[in-house]
Amino acid sequence: MNMDKLTNQVSDWLKGSGPDADIIISTRLRLARNIRGFVFLSYALAKQRIEIESFVHEKLKKVPFHDKLIYIQMKDLSLIDRQFLVERHLISQDHAKASSYRAVAVERKETLSIMVNEEDHLRLQVILAGFQLADGWKEINKIDTQMEKYIPYAFSPQFGYLTACPTNVGTALRISVMLHLPALAIARQIDKVLNALSRIKFAVRGFYGEGTQALGDFYQISNQVTLGKSEQEIINEMQNVIPEIIKFERNWREKLLDDNNKKLKDSIMRAYGILRHAETITSEETMKHLSLIRLGINMNVIKDTTLKKINELFIYTQPAHLQKISKRELAPSLRDIARAKYIKAHLN
Amino acid sequence: MNMDKLTNQVSDWLKGSGPDADIIISTRLRLARNIRGFVFLSYALAKQRIEIESFVHEKLKKVPFHDKLIYIQMKDLSLIDRQFLVERHLISQDHAKASSYRAVAVERKETLSIMVNEEDHLRLQVILAGFQLADGWKEINKIDTQMEKYIPYAFSPQFGYLTACPTNVGTALRISVMLHLPALAIARQIDKVLNALSRIKFAVRGFYGEGTQALGDFYQISNQVTLGKSEQEIINEMQNVIPEIIKFERNWREKLLDDNNKKLKDSIMRAYGILRHAETITSEETMKHLSLIRLGINMNVIKDTTLKKINELFIYTQPAHLQKISKRELAPSLRDIARAKYIKAHLN
Repeated sequence: MNMDKLTNQVSDWLKGSGPDADIIISTRLRLARNIRGFVFLSYALAKQRIEIESFVHEKLKKVPFHDKLIYIQMKDLSLIDRQFLVERHLISQDHAKASSYRAVAVERKETLSIMVNEEDHLRLQVILAGFQLADGWKEINKIDTQMEKYIPYAFSPQFGYLTACPTNVGTALRISVMLHLPALAIARQIDKVLNALSRIKFAVRGFYGEGTQALGDFYQISNQVTLGKSEQEIINEMQNVIPEIIKFERNWREKLLDDNNKKLKDSIMRAYGILRHAETITSEETMKHLSLIRLGINMNVIKDTTLKKINELFIYTQPAHLQKISKRELAPSLRDIARAKYIKAHLN
Repeated sequence: MNMDKLTNQVSDWLKGSGPDADIIISTRLRLARNIRGFVFLSYALAKQRIEIESFVHEKLKKVPFHDKLIYIQMKDLSLIDRQFLVERHLISQDHAKASSYRAVAVERKETLSIMVNEEDHLRLQVILAGFQLADGWKEINKIDTQMEKYIPYAFSPQFGYLTACPTNVGTALRISVMLHLPALAIARQIDKVLNALSRIKFAVRGFYGEGTQALGDFYQISNQVTLGKSEQEIINEMQNVIPEIIKFERNWREKLLDDNNKKLKDSIMRAYGILRHAETITSEETMKHLSLIRLGINMNVIKDTTLKKINELFIYTQPAHLQKISKRELAPSLRDIARAKYIKAHLN
C-alpha cells in the first residue's frame, strides 16, 4: 500500500545538498487555509468534518499535480504508521494523535504535504533541502494558487487568510528553518543565539517541535508573527536573520578546530566509534553521536561517510522508522538493539 | 645498545598462551638471595655496593646460561629506560628509582631477570605465560642451583636463606600470579575474593604492584609467608587456591553472558569502538577498555583480534613504552595522542 512506498524511499529534503547544507537541514514553509462555507474545525461536528474531508479529497483529484499525490486517511493507519509520518516531518504530532476524519496528501518526493482537518481545514507544507527560502516560497505559492482554483479559501480583505487560531491570521505563513548548530552548542554560545532570536520574535523548537530542544543540536527557527506583514516581508526577515546564525556557527567551527583541534576530533571520532560498535543504543544517545559525526563530516574530520547518509540516520533510527523497517512492533529495549544494528549496517 | 633489542621484541610471557591463559596472564617466581661474605645492603657503604655489583657481574659471565643474558647497569639508563624495564615487569619500582650501583641481568626472552643490589644482593625472577607453577619452579630452581655453584649464598641451617628483610627469610620465595578478573569485577564479587585471600595470608596487588589495584581488572596474588614452609608447600598452597578463583571467574563469565548478554556485549563492543577511534586517551582509560576487550576475546564476542595483541597493548601503551617507541620524551598530553595512534594502528 501507499505507506510502503514511503518506507522504502528517502525524503528528497534529506539528501544533504542544497545551499548551506553544512548547517541548514531544511527550509519548510507552511500555509494554513480554511474553506469558505465550512465552519472552523473548533466548532465542527463529526458530520461537518466528514464533509470537509471528502470535499478536499474530491478537489485534490482535480488539481494539476493530482497524479503526484498519495492520499492517506488517518483512520487507515496504525499507530506506528502515524508516528512514521511524524518522524518523516509530513504530519504534526497532533494530526497523528487525534482521530476524527483527518487525512494527509503527500507528494511522491515528500516535498509537499497537505494535512486535512488538522487545526485548520488545510495545512499546506513545502519542505526543501538546505536554505531555499525563495524556491520554497515559489513552490508553495504555486501549489496554493493552483488549489485556490478548486477550493474557495476563507479570506478577509481586512485580515487576510482566516484561521482557526488568531495567531495564524493574515498570511497564515509559517517558515521553519532547521539548523544544525553543534559548534555553538559545544562552545556554549547557543543560549545567546536563542535569546536574541526570541527578542526579535522568532520561535525556536527542536528536531520534532516543542520539548525536543537540543536533541542532536538541531534548532528549528520559525517566524511567530503572521499578521500585518506581507509574505515577502516575512521571507525577507528570515533571509536576514538565518545567514547571521550560519556565519556565527561557521566561525565557531573554525575557532574550535584552531583552539582545541585534538579534543574536538577526539569527541567526533569516539562518537563514530561508539555508533559503529554499540550493540544497543537509545534514540537520544544516537542523535548526540550523529550530531558530532555530522559536524565531523563538515569539518573534513570524517571522510568515509556522507551528509546524506547521516541525515537519513537521524530519521531512520527513530522508533516508528525502526519498527517499519523491522516490519513488526518492538518494545523499547528491542528497538535499542535494532537501532544499533541498523546504524552499524549503514556506517561500516 | 641492549635496550633497543628489548624495545623491539615482545616478552615471551605476554604471548597469551599457556595454561588458563584466558584468566592467568603470568606466573612469576622470585627468589631473594644474598652473598656470603658481604654485608646486607641496608648496612652497605658505596664501596661495598660496588664490590657486590662487580662480583656478581663477573660471576654471571661464568654461569652456564651466561650467553643468554643482557647485563645492564642502572647508571647507564635514562629515566625512561628504567621506567620501561618496570613496565616490562623486569625490575621493581624501587630498583628504577634509586641509583647506587644497581644492575639487572635479563635473559633474552625476558623469562628470567636478576636484579643486583635491589633490597637483597640478588633477586632472581622467572616469569612464564599462563598458569605454570611447576614449570616456573623447575626453571628458577635450576637457575638458582647453577648460580649457587659460582656464588656462595648466605644460608642458615636454622632459618634457611637469609634476607635483608625478615619477611623474606626462609625459602625467600615469592610466587605472584597475575589474574585478569573482569567478570568478578563487573559482578561486584571481587571484594569477596580479595577478603578471602587476605584471610588465608595471600597478598593482592595491581598490575604494577601496590596502589595500582583494579587497573584493567588485573590482580596479582602472592604468598606472604616464606618461613616455616618448604618451597613445595608454598607452591602447593598456590596450586590449591588459584584454580578456585579461575573457576569463580569462569562461572561469572558464563552467568553474565546468560543473564545480561546484550548489555555485556554492548559494553565490550563500545570499548572496542572507542579504542579503534579515539584521538587521545589516557593510560587508565586504555586499561579499562582493554580489559573489556580481553574479556570479549575470551567470550568469543570479539573475533578479529588476539589475546597476544591485547596483552601486548597493556604493556606497550604504558608511558615509557610509548616514549621508547616514539624515540623521544613526550609530555602527558602528547603521550595520550601517541597512545591513541598506537592503539588504532594495532587494532584496525
